[in-house]
Formats: sequence, C-alpha cells, structure tokens
Amino acid sequence: MVLLEFSLYPTDKGESVSEYVKRNLEIIDESGLPYKLGPMGTCIEGEYDEVMAVVKRCFDRMSADCGRVAIQIKIDYRAGHSGRLDAKVQTLKDKTGRDLRT
Amino acid sequence: MVLLEFSLYPTDKGESVSEYVKRNLEIIDESGLPYKLGPMGTCIEGEYDEVMAVVKRCFDRMSADCGRVAIQIKIDYRAGHSGRLDAKVQTLKDKTGRDLRT
Amino acid sequence: MVLLEFSLYPTDKGESVSEYVKRNLEIIDESGLPYKLGPMGTCIEGEYDEVMAVVKRCFDRMSADCGRVAIQIKIDYRAGHSGRLDAKVQTLKDKTGRDLRT
Amino acid sequence: MVLLEFSLYPTDKGESVSEYVKRNLEIIDESGLPYKLGPMGTCIEGEYDEVMAVVKRCFDRMSADCGRVAIQIKIDYRAGHSGRLDAKVQTLKDKTGRDLRT
Repeated sequence: MVLLEFSLYPTDKGESVSEYVKRNLEIIDESGLPYKLGPMGTCIEGEYDEVMAVVKRCFDRMSADCGRVAIQIKIDYRAGHSGRLDAKVQTLKDKTGRDLRT
Repeated sequence: MVLLEFSLYPTDKGESVSEYVKRNLEIIDESGLPYKLGPMGTCIEGEYDEVMAVVKRCFDRMSADCGRVAIQIKIDYRAGHSGRLDAKVQTLKDKTGRDLRT
Repeated sequence: MVLLEFSLYPTDKGESVSEYVKRNLEIIDESGLPYKLGPMGTCIEGEYDEVMAVVKRCFDRMSADCGRVAIQIKIDYRAGHSGRLDAKVQTLKDKTGRDLRT
Repeated sequence: MVLLEFSLYPTDKGESVSEYVKRNLEIIDESGLPYKLGPMGTCIEGEYDEVMAVVKRCFDRMSADCGRVAIQIKIDYRAGHSGRLDAKVQTLKDKTGRDLRT
C-alpha cells in the first residue's frame, strides 16, 4: 500500500483555478479510495496502480481543455502497512502528547 | 501571505522515523502560526519569512543528530489573500457541492 | 508530451543509497526514452503513459527488496510541444543571453 | 552543505513564462554559488542559509509583479559531504558502468 499526495492544476488559466481543480476532487471522491483533501493537495491511499490510475484520470480530464498542466506527486510506500491515512497523524499526536491541528 | 507545505525527515535512521518527525511538530505547534498536519506533510500559513523560519528551525534540529535529511517544500503565494488554510478546501467543497473528506 | 522529473529511493537502507538508485538509471537508460540525469533526479520526456510506465518499473524493482520507498514526481504537460528536454534550457540561455551552467 | 533544487514560476501569466523564469536564472547565476540548470528546475549547492537566500531573492523579484507564484523545493542534506552537484551523477555513472545522459 502507498500513500500518494498530489496536486494537479492548469497554469494557463489565470490566477484562480478552483473551477478546474474541482474536477480532480470529483474524480477522487468517485474513485472509492480513502482520501483526505488538504490545502495544498489531496492524499489517497491504495495500491500503487490504484492511486496512479486516479491521477491519470485527473490528468486526462485536465489536459482535455488545458494547454499547460503542472503536477506534483509524493509517494510513501511502506511494506505491510495500511490505514496510514489516519495512522501517521495519530502517531504524531501520540508521540508529541499534543492535540495537533489537523 | 503564503501557504507552505513541507516534509522533513532523516533518511539514515531506518524505516520508522516518527520519533524524529515529532520534533518538527513540536516546533511548528510552538511557532504560533496557523497550520494543518496531514498524512504527507504539514501546511503552514504566514508571511514568506515567517514560514521559512519554521522550516529552518526544523532543519537545524534534525541536522543536529541526523547525517542525511530530505526536505520537500511546496509554496503557494497569492497576493492579497489570507485565511487560505481553510478557504481553499471550503471553496472546493462549495464548488463540487460535496462533503469532501478532509 | 510531458516532461517528468522524479527521484525514487529507499529510506530504510541507511545514508548511502546509490547502490539502489543505480537500478533506476539502468531502467531509465533501457527505456529508450530521452532523459537527463541530474543531481536531484532524472527528467524523462514522452507521452504520459510512457514516462509513468518507467517510474512504475523503478518502483517495482525498488519495492521488491526495500521496506520503505520515497518518490517525488513533477510533471510539466504542454500541449503540442516536444523536444523540451533541451528546449527549455536553451530558451533560458537565449533569454538571459548568458552561458548558464547545465 | 545541501543540494537544493527548485522551480519558481507565476501561474497567473498564461502558458509561456520563460520571460519570468529567466529572472531566477539571472539571480542564481549572480549568486556565485555552484548550480546546474535542468529542464524542470535548478540545483544549487551551498550552506542551507546560502541556498535559501537565493530562493528568497527569486521569490521577492517574482512576487513584485506576479499575483500568484508556485514554488517547489527539494533539499538533500548530507553531513560532511560537498561537491555533490557533480559527484552524485558521477557515482551513478560509475556504479552503472554506463555513459548516462546528463
């Protein structure tokens, strides 16, 4: 299982691009995979091929009518671990003993 | 104001590094800046110099006893906008009309 | 066509990981796609599916014997443009009028 | 010493932004620090504060007349190592025994 965080947006559509980015969230939400939307990207958890297939669908939809698209992806693979979308944050709350903001 | 998301961790301390990463969260939490901890990094909002100063403190603490440290940073600067730590996510909820998971 | 830059390495194998990273370069070199190795990652040019297939092969090989793997990917898609592995750098040399170091 | 790779560009200026990105290269070239320009970003080598100061100058110049700016930064700190702008690539050439493209 991997955690994949990505952002994917057009850079040829001016300063505000939420009308375009909302498409990603529709695709992600409909994928059925566990995810978390954050201020700078969305994290998805699943097998490598599953999460990459979601990114690909987002890319196909964005490149259909955008001339330039930027994508940033970070992946954290850890053998034999799942449920890390929540567990990584919880571990840090436990280890710091603080009610960290999430 | 900028949104800065970063992850900063040692790569010479084996598979589990939460004992090291927890230091970042202590530093971030004590900075007084608004932040959100996520599964793949932490977002901080503030002026460029403010948020970069937090990253620097995390780096200093980590490099004090780690031989190799990896850092990834993404910054989104938007003139005249603040409160985006929450606003960006809310905008996407509004535009999709969905209760997106956060 | 896209430009994809990525780095992919184990984080559970200690400070020096070039023995592991060299596998990526063998896979990339054998892919037949145009690429450029740099100090912090490798850029590949091709269709989205082509370049992502190379990353996948690198991931499969790395995750076969590494317990934790970190991946960072940046993609720049620009409709109707190719040959950008060299052209982007050349444009900056031309526009600055300087013999920039590459 | 750290290796820092970054890209910094406006996202509110349309599809072609090399007129803006060329400013970064002027600033980097004049910094006196060793660097390498690549297709997806520029790598600089130096002390943490030195390389971050270069990024800051690029940000100040870009944000002076751009309403939205995206920055991606990757840092690789390794205690007691320098000259890695060239050494990391050379190590991979040596270990693969191939004349990898750079």
